[in-house]
Amino acid sequence: MSAAETFAKLRAHARETALVASIGGLVEWDEQTYLPPSGGDWRAEQQAYLAGVVHARSTAPALGEWLAELRDSDEARDPESDIGCVTRELSRRYERETKLPGDLVEEIARTSSKAHHAWTTARRSDDFAIFRPWLEQMLALQRRKAEAFGYEASPYDALIEDYEPGETAESVGSVLTGLRAELAPLVQAIVGSGVAAPSEVLRESFDVETQAIFGKAAAQAIGFDFASGRLDVTAHPFCGGAGPNDVRMTTRYNEHDFADAFFSTLHETGHGLYEQGLPGEWFGLPPGEAISLGIHESQSRMWENLVGRGRGFWRHFFGPLGEAFPVAMKGVDPESWYFAINEAKPSLIRTESDEATYNLHVIVRFELERAMIEGDLLPSDLPAAWNEKYASIVGITPPSDANGCLQDVHWSAGLFGYFPTYSLGNLYSAQFFDQAEADLGDLEAMFAAGEFDPLLGWLRKNIHQVGQRLSASQLVERVTGKPLSHEPLMRRLKAKFGELYGFG
Amino acid sequence: MSAAETFAKLRAHARETALVASIGGLVEWDEQTYLPPSGGDWRAEQQAYLAGVVHARSTAPALGEWLAELRDSDEARDPESDIGCVTRELSRRYERETKLPGDLVEEIARTSSKAHHAWTTARRSDDFAIFRPWLEQMLALQRRKAEAFGYEASPYDALIEDYEPGETAESVGSVLTGLRAELAPLVQAIVGSGVAAPSEVLRESFDVETQAIFGKAAAQAIGFDFASGRLDVTAHPFCGGAGPNDVRMTTRYNEHDFADAFFSTLHETGHGLYEQGLPGEWFGLPPGEAISLGIHESQSRMWENLVGRGRGFWRHFFGPLGEAFPVAMKGVDPESWYFAINEAKPSLIRTESDEATYNLHVIVRFELERAMIEGDLLPSDLPAAWNEKYASIVGITPPSDANGCLQDVHWSAGLFGYFPTYSLGNLYSAQFFDQAEADLGDLEAMFAAGEFDPLLGWLRKNIHQVGQRLSASQLVERVTGKPLSHEPLMRRLKAKFGELYGFG
Repeated sequence: MSAAETFAKLRAHARETALVASIGGLVEWDEQTYLPPSGGDWRAEQQAYLAGVVHARSTAPALGEWLAELRDSDEARDPESDIGCVTRELSRRYERETKLPGDLVEEIARTSSKAHHAWTTARRSDDFAIFRPWLEQMLALQRRKAEAFGYEASPYDALIEDYEPGETAESVGSVLTGLRAELAPLVQAIVGSGVAAPSEVLRESFDVETQAIFGKAAAQAIGFDFASGRLDVTAHPFCGGAGPNDVRMTTRYNEHDFADAFFSTLHETGHGLYEQGLPGEWFGLPPGEAISLGIHESQSRMWENLVGRGRGFWRHFFGPLGEAFPVAMKGVDPESWYFAINEAKPSLIRTESDEATYNLHVIVRFELERAMIEGDLLPSDLPAAWNEKYASIVGITPPSDANGCLQDVHWSAGLFGYFPTYSLGNLYSAQFFDQAEADLGDLEAMFAAGEFDPLLGWLRKNIHQVGQRLSASQLVERVTGKPLSHEPLMRRLKAKFGELYGFG
Repeated sequence: MSAAETFAKLRAHARETALVASIGGLVEWDEQTYLPPSGGDWRAEQQAYLAGVVHARSTAPALGEWLAELRDSDEARDPESDIGCVTRELSRRYERETKLPGDLVEEIARTSSKAHHAWTTARRSDDFAIFRPWLEQMLALQRRKAEAFGYEASPYDALIEDYEPGETAESVGSVLTGLRAELAPLVQAIVGSGVAAPSEVLRESFDVETQAIFGKAAAQAIGFDFASGRLDVTAHPFCGGAGPNDVRMTTRYNEHDFADAFFSTLHETGHGLYEQGLPGEWFGLPPGEAISLGIHESQSRMWENLVGRGRGFWRHFFGPLGEAFPVAMKGVDPESWYFAINEAKPSLIRTESDEATYNLHVIVRFELERAMIEGDLLPSDLPAAWNEKYASIVGITPPSDANGCLQDVHWSAGLFGYFPTYSLGNLYSAQFFDQAEADLGDLEAMFAAGEFDPLLGWLRKNIHQVGQRLSASQLVERVTGKPLSHEPLMRRLKAKFGELYGFG
């Protein structure tokens, strides 16, 4: 068979796998949005069935043979070509999936389920001892997983590969250490300024239905195509999907917390715009898939923070905001509004933290999970180590483990190596945004005029349309001409918060 | 292998098939409710994939071998036992599915799609000639299908088997002829009475959100469990589902047509109660499945008409109705309301017709489709035959084919043998309702007191819990002690409309 013929077979096979996976996407979305309460048990069986089909198809021996054939072909030599990209990425995944012994996969699934239950109880009763044995088991399993995959420097490298392919403990550690060194002092300066943001306005009464209309209008204004997607309500906002023209975002509304719904809508819209910008004809195959969690997060954070918390954006939306919420917004001027939505102060909970402090929360987790995976920190020592790092990095001491090392679900689910992608997203986004501004001119002026198309067009061309033809670090180099650095983000944060809090 | 071992394998296989089919149920529901407009093409592929898996599993040779083994076993001898019921029903379906040549199935699917398109155009432009060649092709295909299945008396028998297993052109024809003979004169008497129902109130303004709350409360009051189901909005109301505790009903709201939404909600709730009453542990297998379309329709029609259009029901709901819609209901007394929702008059369109005339519409279709399938009526003669029958049976002459023989989608979709199930449902429902009253006492008095549990409990025990252990005609005999007859329905219609329109 010629490489082209083999590739045609491979592509058809992978497309059908993507079709099944997309059905799983719908089933998952429905579980979060509309599933009746008693439907949960059957739903779990539907999900297990679909996951089983996807796994069987992704590890099919025929697939392995086609990939081996293509790897040897001339046609696959250009890593950015269709065949080159598909062969490289599917080979990487095939190898990883087939390296994991079935009993290990099952044991992780079983342990996750029990660990999740223990974590829920431990957090509710603020009792780390309940979670500790499960954390120990989960760590042991994750280390076995890393051994199965293989690695050079650190077992953490083998784990992060699932979320940010190509990155390592060392590469991520080096950029986050640089960020930490400058960000912690910035947050101290904010605290030291003694200035308080006029954020009371955000707790006024904002009618929930009007919030939904306003948020949807903003999502549409920045480019989300509602003919190819939806925005629904869930307890935990997310962006999923059920097909190439079917992107499903969710948010949640709270009458007395305008910022929560609005910025989570912009955040998910950023994810949604990436999904809608991927090449549809390659849906579910590497040239049509997002590069990594970090690159995905760079899109959500860009629209949420760099666009949505900027002055230009609100020069356009402040008038409509006042018309939509005349009572809540009465007497509020644009500058106080801008300060209110950019309030920064150290807090206990990552998911509620602001643009300035957020990355410090992530850095704590990265350093601790890396130490645990590398054997330098025992689970029994986690609460003390957590509290110490919060004091030294974030500047506050958690009053309880429930609001400390037990606050996140990730470790109970076996997600080690996932946290740093949140910060990588912030770093990528600032570096991309600088470049977009260099290429396009004054973005803030465009946003003030309601023009979001130039930025979206730039993202489509430079990032969305690339699919997985480049790795995350290759993309950063290709688009910005430089390797990833903490400097673009720090420059922005220093300028923004220095001005607001009157220092620097 | 013992019969028990074979049965265990068969049951596990069939259960997984039901699991896949239930995913298809969700995908179909989502298509009707929330699918973004551009998601249609991919959705069609998802549906085709799932249908393919279900078909492959339902015709798997291993399944045929297990069934053959079980048919020879002692354990399958009792037709109402688990093994007996499953073996009989799955054998029947397996035989039918494997008798149909693959190319015929494909040709019907292809032709349906084109015929549907032609039908849409023909109806829009009121031009039967556009649809005629497709109707001819579809008829030829349906006759080939009947030949493939085999039949004794009429090819129509082989087709109705898909919708009302065990019934024949002769059995259905005989009961519908009896019905026609008494119903047509009743409708003539209504017309001849010169009395008009005070139905203007139904066109008043009924706030749509309040309608939704009121309709949902009524569905809940008669027993629908919203922890195991939903009610959403679609253009065409239906009741589907995605699992044993996941029944999905829909309706539609029109501010100036209270009856449309409310009675379609009761109708779908009747279907939903049947689904929720089936034995969940047998979900998707014969002991946990509805007997036939006619029995399903008997449940929807009972709650819609025999309960929901009765005086007792409104003795309970009239007060809340007035509170929900004080302006629209101002000055309306219970008796005019009862007459308004029971207005009867001959009309052109089946789906908009009332309790008295509805079955006449169905009888026209049944007689015409039977004649076409049996070769006694040519498609080219359909418009004339349709108009003649409407004049003689319903008492009006259609002014156009668009509002005449082109009004229904069924024939373009190849659904021959489906129409009579609508009328069978009405006949079953009246005969069951008489028996329930004989067993339980004064049902109207119970409804007036808001007590719907006794009737629902009776339906659960006598009908829902039976699953497919009995055929429709066996069920009627078992529950009512008599074969199906048009008399119970006619007695009710004569009494109700005779009183309202002042005759008889």
